[in-house]
Amino acid sequence: MANDLSAYFLTNHERHLNELSEWLSIPSISSLSAHKKDTVKGAEWIVRELKRIGMEKVEVYPTQGHPVVYAERLHAKEKPTVLVYGHYDVQPVDPLHLWESDPFKPAIRDNKIYARGATDDKGQTFMHLKVVEALLKEHGELPVNIKFLIEGEEEIGSINLPEFVEKNQELLFTDVIVISDTGMQEKGQPALCYGLRGLAGLQIDVKGAKGDLHSGQFGGAVQNALHALVHLLDSFRNEDGVIQVERFYDKVKDLEDEEKKVHDSLQFSDKELKKELEVNDLAGEKGFSTLERMWVRPTLEINGMWGGYQGEGLKTVLPNEAHAKITCRLVPDQDPDEIIRLLTAHIEAHTPAGVTVAVTVYDKGAPYVAPYDHPAIQAAGRSYEKIYDVPVQYIRRGGTIPIVAEFDQILKKPVVLMGFGLPGENFHAPNEHFHLENFDYGLRVITDYLQELPKALEKSNDLTQKL
Amino acid sequence: MANDLSAYFLTNHERHLNELSEWLSIPSISSLSAHKKDTVKGAEWIVRELKRIGMEKVEVYPTQGHPVVYAERLHAKEKPTVLVYGHYDVQPVDPLHLWESDPFKPAIRDNKIYARGATDDKGQTFMHLKVVEALLKEHGELPVNIKFLIEGEEEIGSINLPEFVEKNQELLFTDVIVISDTGMQEKGQPALCYGLRGLAGLQIDVKGAKGDLHSGQFGGAVQNALHALVHLLDSFRNEDGVIQVERFYDKVKDLEDEEKKVHDSLQFSDKELKKELEVNDLAGEKGFSTLERMWVRPTLEINGMWGGYQGEGLKTVLPNEAHAKITCRLVPDQDPDEIIRLLTAHIEAHTPAGVTVAVTVYDKGAPYVAPYDHPAIQAAGRSYEKIYDVPVQYIRRGGTIPIVAEFDQILKKPVVLMGFGLPGENFHAPNEHFHLENFDYGLRVITDYLQELPKALEKSNDLTQKL
Repeated sequence: MANDLSAYFLTNHERHLNELSEWLSIPSISSLSAHKKDTVKGAEWIVRELKRIGMEKVEVYPTQGHPVVYAERLHAKEKPTVLVYGHYDVQPVDPLHLWESDPFKPAIRDNKIYARGATDDKGQTFMHLKVVEALLKEHGELPVNIKFLIEGEEEIGSINLPEFVEKNQELLFTDVIVISDTGMQEKGQPALCYGLRGLAGLQIDVKGAKGDLHSGQFGGAVQNALHALVHLLDSFRNEDGVIQVERFYDKVKDLEDEEKKVHDSLQFSDKELKKELEVNDLAGEKGFSTLERMWVRPTLEINGMWGGYQGEGLKTVLPNEAHAKITCRLVPDQDPDEIIRLLTAHIEAHTPAGVTVAVTVYDKGAPYVAPYDHPAIQAAGRSYEKIYDVPVQYIRRGGTIPIVAEFDQILKKPVVLMGFGLPGENFHAPNEHFHLENFDYGLRVITDYLQELPKALEKSNDLTQKL
Repeated sequence: MANDLSAYFLTNHERHLNELSEWLSIPSISSLSAHKKDTVKGAEWIVRELKRIGMEKVEVYPTQGHPVVYAERLHAKEKPTVLVYGHYDVQPVDPLHLWESDPFKPAIRDNKIYARGATDDKGQTFMHLKVVEALLKEHGELPVNIKFLIEGEEEIGSINLPEFVEKNQELLFTDVIVISDTGMQEKGQPALCYGLRGLAGLQIDVKGAKGDLHSGQFGGAVQNALHALVHLLDSFRNEDGVIQVERFYDKVKDLEDEEKKVHDSLQFSDKELKKELEVNDLAGEKGFSTLERMWVRPTLEINGMWGGYQGEGLKTVLPNEAHAKITCRLVPDQDPDEIIRLLTAHIEAHTPAGVTVAVTVYDKGAPYVAPYDHPAIQAAGRSYEKIYDVPVQYIRRGGTIPIVAEFDQILKKPVVLMGFGLPGENFHAPNEHFHLENFDYGLRVITDYLQELPKALEKSNDLTQKL
């Protein structure tokens, strides 16, 4: 492999980690307004870095929310263009006491880097910058044209990005979109993700009497907001884990036999998962395998719930307020707006007497399934196989990258989900980390892919035009 | 009314309120260990005050928890003995932001004193001390023998008091027990409470996977602790508000026709209650009137519930922990220990697969119904009528004073629930307050009662002996 930059990456390993740690130290939590300035800092850091490595037209585009960062380098004449998408925002860190080290003081333990955003998604986005830097330093120029689009609202549903993409189709014109924000199934086993679930999220606020009441004085006579909420939330799923929201499954496509075979080939082990998560039983929709429940079936999960007295001991209060946050993961061809309408109708129909309920709509994102036989995707598979030296797996993921479906609809180009995360890396949870083994392999996979892509697309010019 | 001390009480009104404010300023919250020292301060304050007004043998008895304060003055030879019970501990104050003034900086607005404990129970207990002080100052001696028993654990189920009462039966020997810790139905309408509900409370802790999980990655495959809790909590009551815990109602006595007539005579208005609480509908067990649901039917209420993400916006987490606090109000002849066993069995039977549940037992208290035709109770009714100048109502209350049933069982003497609170005074809730009008009337009612009691008991000596 003449064009392999392994030696370069090894030499620069420590510098890379120091730079990444700097970025990971910025608490750019997009959902919390108290961190508004930090998200700007997160954007500024990546802007400085993009300029430093040799990207051009590096610009910050303000939005209604957190800014979008764009950069390009278009000197590879008659070569394909690759749009790399990533995000500089991260999830909140609570419960903080469960972190073994400060989420914003990156720590390396056992060849893993621990920090909020280590794998989702600063760590994975950062690899693409390092590959560009390496190629420019070692080869003087890039083998393809590259555009970067790095946003700050992925964790809150990419609220403003679709409008930006819609308005800037020319700026973002590309042959392929590459995103590293997913993962593989197990260590040493590379995987290319060709499908993601969508998302529809909302908050439910229940209000009863004018204030909290004494549970002895009024208990039995007045609706308790917590009981009303519990009843409402329990009405969403039945004992078999089947979602009871009317027409919820109407648009869900049946799994094709071919994909079932792919699932079978993965030899997924329920036993292993139970062991990993330390549970006695798995749960979920009856009649579907665990992989199906995680990848190709829609879900409804309560993400948070609270009300009444939460302190030490008891307080004999009859609470007048109760709150819950729920999200649904969606699969083709469910439409997030329609699902929000169905959920709202269900809530209205199941609100007990004596309380009022308000619904606030949050994140939305459509599901996405890529044509995994597309040459740009197949080329990615070959790069994985070359570097990891094992056959690549084609998988779907249960998570959501809200902008993926929008890219598909607006830019009409294939999205290559070239992820390097691992299942136990605590995405969105305490002690998020990224295996440095995959950081090292990933740099080489991306390098190889950018070099091999022109050939792959040349051969299948027709197909590319069609998509 | 030669023995009326109205003039004295008027002269000393301001001093009384200043003294009460001092006591109310001590945050003696018994359920929170952070306030351990404050509960001791609450006890010390009342000890100093008991000594100052002329009580004797004033002593602090340590318990496993918060101390018990005892005092006596036994110079009324051949007169009955009255044991006054009260409590110096108070409920927690959250949600703090809903208080219009600091819960521990007593404020007088619109002839009401606002503070935690104003009505429950420092304000009401304090009246008895002021009556003793007044009688001693104005008459030189008390018309009856008086004992005070003031504890610091009423709000946490009087955990240690039964043992104290059991061990100190001689010290506490009395003819009648008087407690001012209840209320009347409406302003200007005195009421004597002859029945209280009991209490059984516990906390439920649900534990799922080893940690919080990503709701996209694992959603649909693993039991969400919040869903498990919601399912468990919703299983406690059916759509008609009937508690579904097996054998829960087995020991509940039917309401006697005579008492039904008393209820009817009270002309309770659902419409008024809805207006007062600002709700469109009342709720609760089908087939029972609102008064019945509040006074003579048992309940199961969720007092608090929490788990997962409770911050701004969404966090797409699949929480591995969920918690709830519940209490049941009990009626004769339900036994708190048995109810705890039934609840625990129900929880075990309804725990969904994939989670484990732990139960922590908190407060317990038996229900109590007094013989309201007892002369000590009838005498109290006459004192109310004399001072308020309207017929007294005989009512039951939905709340619990845990020690009342124990007094009944151990001391075998009637308990006179001579309350001066009002329904809207926010017992256990933000902006607790006490109407000073009832503070003023109350002092005179108690004064009259202590003077009239010897005659009343003399006449019905047989009956007293029998009880």
